[in-house]
Amino acid sequence: MNNCIAAQSGGPTAAINASLAGVIQGVLDRPEYDHIYGSLNGITGILEERFLDLTETFQEADNLELLKVTPAMYLGSCRYKLPNPEDDPAVYETIFRFFEKMEITAFFYIGGNDSMDTVDKLSAYAARVQSQVCIIGIPKTIDNDLCVTDHTPGFGSAAKYVASSLLEIYHDTAIYAPKSVTIVEIMGRDAGWLTAASALARNEYCTAPHLIYLPEAAFDKEAFLKDIGSLLETRSNVIVAVSEGIRDKEGNYISASTGSADNFGHSQLSGAGKTLEYLVQERLNVKVRSIELNILQRCGAHIASLTDLEESFCQGQQGVSLAAQGITGQMVIIQRTGSEPYQVSYGSSPVCDIANQVKSVPKAYINAAGNDVTPEILSYLRPLIQGQPKLAFDQGIPRYLPVPHL
Amino acid sequence: MNNCIAAQSGGPTAAINASLAGVIQGVLDRPEYDHIYGSLNGITGILEERFLDLTETFQEADNLELLKVTPAMYLGSCRYKLPNPEDDPAVYETIFRFFEKMEITAFFYIGGNDSMDTVDKLSAYAARVQSQVCIIGIPKTIDNDLCVTDHTPGFGSAAKYVASSLLEIYHDTAIYAPKSVTIVEIMGRDAGWLTAASALARNEYCTAPHLIYLPEAAFDKEAFLKDIGSLLETRSNVIVAVSEGIRDKEGNYISASTGSADNFGHSQLSGAGKTLEYLVQERLNVKVRSIELNILQRCGAHIASLTDLEESFCQGQQGVSLAAQGITGQMVIIQRTGSEPYQVSYGSSPVCDIANQVKSVPKAYINAAGNDVTPEILSYLRPLIQGQPKLAFDQGIPRYLPVPHL
Repeated sequence: MNNCIAAQSGGPTAAINASLAGVIQGVLDRPEYDHIYGSLNGITGILEERFLDLTETFQEADNLELLKVTPAMYLGSCRYKLPNPEDDPAVYETIFRFFEKMEITAFFYIGGNDSMDTVDKLSAYAARVQSQVCIIGIPKTIDNDLCVTDHTPGFGSAAKYVASSLLEIYHDTAIYAPKSVTIVEIMGRDAGWLTAASALARNEYCTAPHLIYLPEAAFDKEAFLKDIGSLLETRSNVIVAVSEGIRDKEGNYISASTGSADNFGHSQLSGAGKTLEYLVQERLNVKVRSIELNILQRCGAHIASLTDLEESFCQGQQGVSLAAQGITGQMVIIQRTGSEPYQVSYGSSPVCDIANQVKSVPKAYINAAGNDVTPEILSYLRPLIQGQPKLAFDQGIPRYLPVPHL
Repeated sequence: MNNCIAAQSGGPTAAINASLAGVIQGVLDRPEYDHIYGSLNGITGILEERFLDLTETFQEADNLELLKVTPAMYLGSCRYKLPNPEDDPAVYETIFRFFEKMEITAFFYIGGNDSMDTVDKLSAYAARVQSQVCIIGIPKTIDNDLCVTDHTPGFGSAAKYVASSLLEIYHDTAIYAPKSVTIVEIMGRDAGWLTAASALARNEYCTAPHLIYLPEAAFDKEAFLKDIGSLLETRSNVIVAVSEGIRDKEGNYISASTGSADNFGHSQLSGAGKTLEYLVQERLNVKVRSIELNILQRCGAHIASLTDLEESFCQGQQGVSLAAQGITGQMVIIQRTGSEPYQVSYGSSPVCDIANQVKSVPKAYINAAGNDVTPEILSYLRPLIQGQPKLAFDQGIPRYLPVPHL
């Protein structure tokens, strides 16, 4: 027997199941693996021997198609940081004992930069103990902040949700004559890619968002108030897109909450939008509202990008192809090989160059005033939100694959 | 010449333009009217002589089709309460002088219960001064709180947005093993119809929302904490749907904000979800998040209900048919004439029975504990969210009709 196992980790996206579907399809299409297992709740499912055999369930093509469009993680997630092997070798021994017992020769971990840390540690450990198990990372994150790869699975769908919502918010706010300010808070702790994608809402009549603030540019409250003030001289409704992670020039978050830290040491943020709402209310005599797009921007699969889902699927397949060649310690990457027309190819890169790194929005994509993006970023972003997946509806709401009992 | 004029008022919905499209189609299809004008920003456009001639723009069928699916108000909105004619006859004189000058014999006002107050006052005034102008109300509100009519245009689309979002939130929250509570705040100041519609998210695997609190049932904080506590004994992730307008048994809003009042004397609410988030955080040792669906639930046209848009269109047409028969002071209503299969017919009812009234969710639709709806309400709600409008996409985002310069 020669088996493999997949797991999903980190925050949900609309495309992380498309990558899992790609892994499953890759396994079903090739002769190398007899069974594909799914570890429940990321790597913790391996530690606790909680897993499913996916081979049977997904022999049925309908299930695989439904998996592709289902948001969040079919296999559940975790936020578990692997200890260093020197500090806690027992964890590694448990994992590799499980691999041996289940005759597993490949492990596919679908996740963001924290999950790539797990891939990095496991592959380094495997090399040290001369295990033949291939450890492959398959990227995902709505933040688009993984290095080396052109863009990340899940980002395009979130970007499409954000841009579509901004367009609809524009229609909603344009109806009243009295002056108003609407502040839309968008996810992105360290990187402003998703907030930048709000600019995709602009078209021949929609000028929103009128201001865009990313974590990559130092946020200045007085400049912000001045920006809004001058816009209100010429138009009634000002719409502002703001990243949850904006900071002042000293690096302090513009946020109402003080914040605790998660297992990876990230601050739990909320409230940049709310903070700015209060600021505008206090300082400018104008109606103001803040909108937090919240988790719907990552799980709103009903307006996913077909390009994103298809690419995510291909990256899952690519992961299987790498492992079948005996490659390990690598993350699947996507390379943009053409712009007009947009074309991509798939490859891989050592995960140690990617884990725990953050790809920020480069300066060339941010205007000099730090309150908007440049037109160049639109050419980069636009291809990623194209196409609509075909959704089925059950009694009026989208049909997704039932979540297994996790 | 024999002309007519339409206007839109109150808060946006995804279907209020479908009703306007129905009015325009009704006018184009019949011989009675030469021109249809559109008053900008509701009745204030008539007072200030700001209006468009819609006849030409919508000769083109493509524009009318696009108008049907475009969210919010093509003609803009207002929150203007007509004074009593005894207090301020000049306002009425201005309006009817405009009607005379423009040879207008019918006025169609598309709006909620506040707008029906305007229809009521204008038609009463018209009768007193023996004007022949027909004043017709065409309903709209995501709140579904208009009396007499079976349900209101815009509600079905908002209900579909709410139910689809709840299903996606269920997928999103189901992935983590640690216990968590997610509180989703839904619009509805006085009536809980839209919050009740969250129950449409439930299917053969989705049990969310696990608790539903409407303004119609007195909210008890201790009972709420107990409800959550007992659910957490058997499941990891509890999802709560809560109306922005929930009140305790003394009638006080469960809300973080004290609130100012708008022109109609309504309190400006926000924060029921946030307040409950803080309460759970303080009293139960569990991860908690609140999500405010905010204005996207009323403008999220990308997931509108086709049934809603079609019925809204028909109600616009029906309004024209009423005026053409010389009927005045009436609001178009929809009657449910069959349940399996769902069937409706259109009629009208005196607007004085509808204006300023609120149709609450009846007791039979709320469970005894006041923390859920009964299955009966689902049969009422389900037909209203059926069908998906065909949306065009431009460069990856939905294509809507450009907002005219308001």
